Amino acid sequence: MVGDAGVGGDVADAASEVPARATIDLLGVLAYGELSAFDRLAEDARTAPTLSGRAQLSAMAAAEIGHFRLLEDHLRGLGVPVEEAMAPFVGPLDSYHASTAPRSWLESLVKAYVGDGLAADFYREVAGWVDESTGELVRQVLADTGHSAFAEREVRAACEANRQVRDRLALWGRRLLGEAVTQAQHIVAERDELAEFIVRGSGDLMGIATLIKRLQSNHGKRMASLGLA
Amino acid sequence: MVGDAGVGGDVADAASEVPARATIDLLGVLAYGELSAFDRLAEDARTAPTLSGRAQLSAMAAAEIGHFRLLEDHLRGLGVPVEEAMAPFVGPLDSYHASTAPRSWLESLVKAYVGDGLAADFYREVAGWVDESTGELVRQVLADTGHSAFAEREVRAACEANRQVRDRLALWGRRLLGEAVTQAQHIVAERDELAEFIVRGSGDLMGIATLIKRLQSNHGKRMASLGLA
Repeated sequence: MVGDAGVGGDVADAASEVPARATIDLLGVLAYGELSAFDRLAEDARTAPTLSGRAQLSAMAAAEIGHFRLLEDHLRGLGVPVEEAMAPFVGPLDSYHASTAPRSWLESLVKAYVGDGLAADFYREVAGWVDESTGELVRQVLADTGHSAFAEREVRAACEANRQVRDRLALWGRRLLGEAVTQAQHIVAERDELAEFIVRGSGDLMGIATLIKRLQSNHGKRMASLGLA
Repeated sequence: MVGDAGVGGDVADAASEVPARATIDLLGVLAYGELSAFDRLAEDARTAPTLSGRAQLSAMAAAEIGHFRLLEDHLRGLGVPVEEAMAPFVGPLDSYHASTAPRSWLESLVKAYVGDGLAADFYREVAGWVDESTGELVRQVLADTGHSAFAEREVRAACEANRQVRDRLALWGRRLLGEAVTQAQHIVAERDELAEFIVRGSGDLMGIATLIKRLQSNHGKRMASLGLA
């Protein structure tokens, strides 16, 4: 009995330690995701063809910082400086952005829309696997900031006006998904606790496959909303 | 009597029209000031030597957008699209930023701190000359967003460590004031209603001289807070 309790205790400790680390990883990658999205959106805002478009994309960027600060506060409550939590994810996320630098205003809009949506889908799945207060925060951070209608309107109008533009943007959207998956795989390959956490959260390897299918399916719906299906 | 009333009416109409236009000009230049400050701060954030500094400057940038949106809403209430109100000020403000592009992280911090402070001082004076709801909004937009302590800490530490850095930044601060005054003069020279509004608000030409002295004196105090006196 004592022996059993001891073994059970070790297992329980290990189990509770893993999610704690994985939770910090998740908050860290989410935080750097917000900070780097801010940076890219702010840069893309300059290519806006109108002052109004520039203001809209700038506002999307600013919303990311609002989210970043919520994550920073939450991490501080857990005793972890946000810089420390973000550090492992700077490389992969910078690579993602470097390999998907938009070459036009419309590419910027598609990237902002598709990237936000993909991140939101993933984190919404994950929000159910972490403790309640972290889950609540993640959902809050990912609430739609009301900017997506703007991107939909602009991209749809451009696609309806020009079929070639539509075809190119459709390829672009597909590439964004591919690059995101590639970088996500890099991250998970380097972080054992995170990998374990995702396998456990989604049930098993089959669960992961189903999760990825759901993400792809939602991506397809978003492409359709942009007129890129 | 009828003639007198007619003349009085015309004068009153002209008088009430001038401030209305000048008010829109003020809100417009303030709005584009926020939007362009966002853009520059976001760019400068990239040169931050640490993730923490980058997050701080990004947050300063995001705060500008919060203010921008308040101004946009207020202008919408007056029936004026923010793009229209901003349009006349894009050139002069872009010129200001082009002629004061920071060449280092410390120059960025000094510019953010000094520029915010100078704008806040000017608009605080002006807030008393416009209708109450506009004045209230202007004061709200200019409330310190709590980022100045960060700039003070960083710049002070760098100046204490290196006298040459201090001397250069002191020159930089002086140049920022000069460039701001130059662009402000360009703007006022092009906008009769605005010029009239400022003369009337500050009392007379002597009043303007006193106002400029107050702005210079506060600028000096800010330079001292940065350790650049």
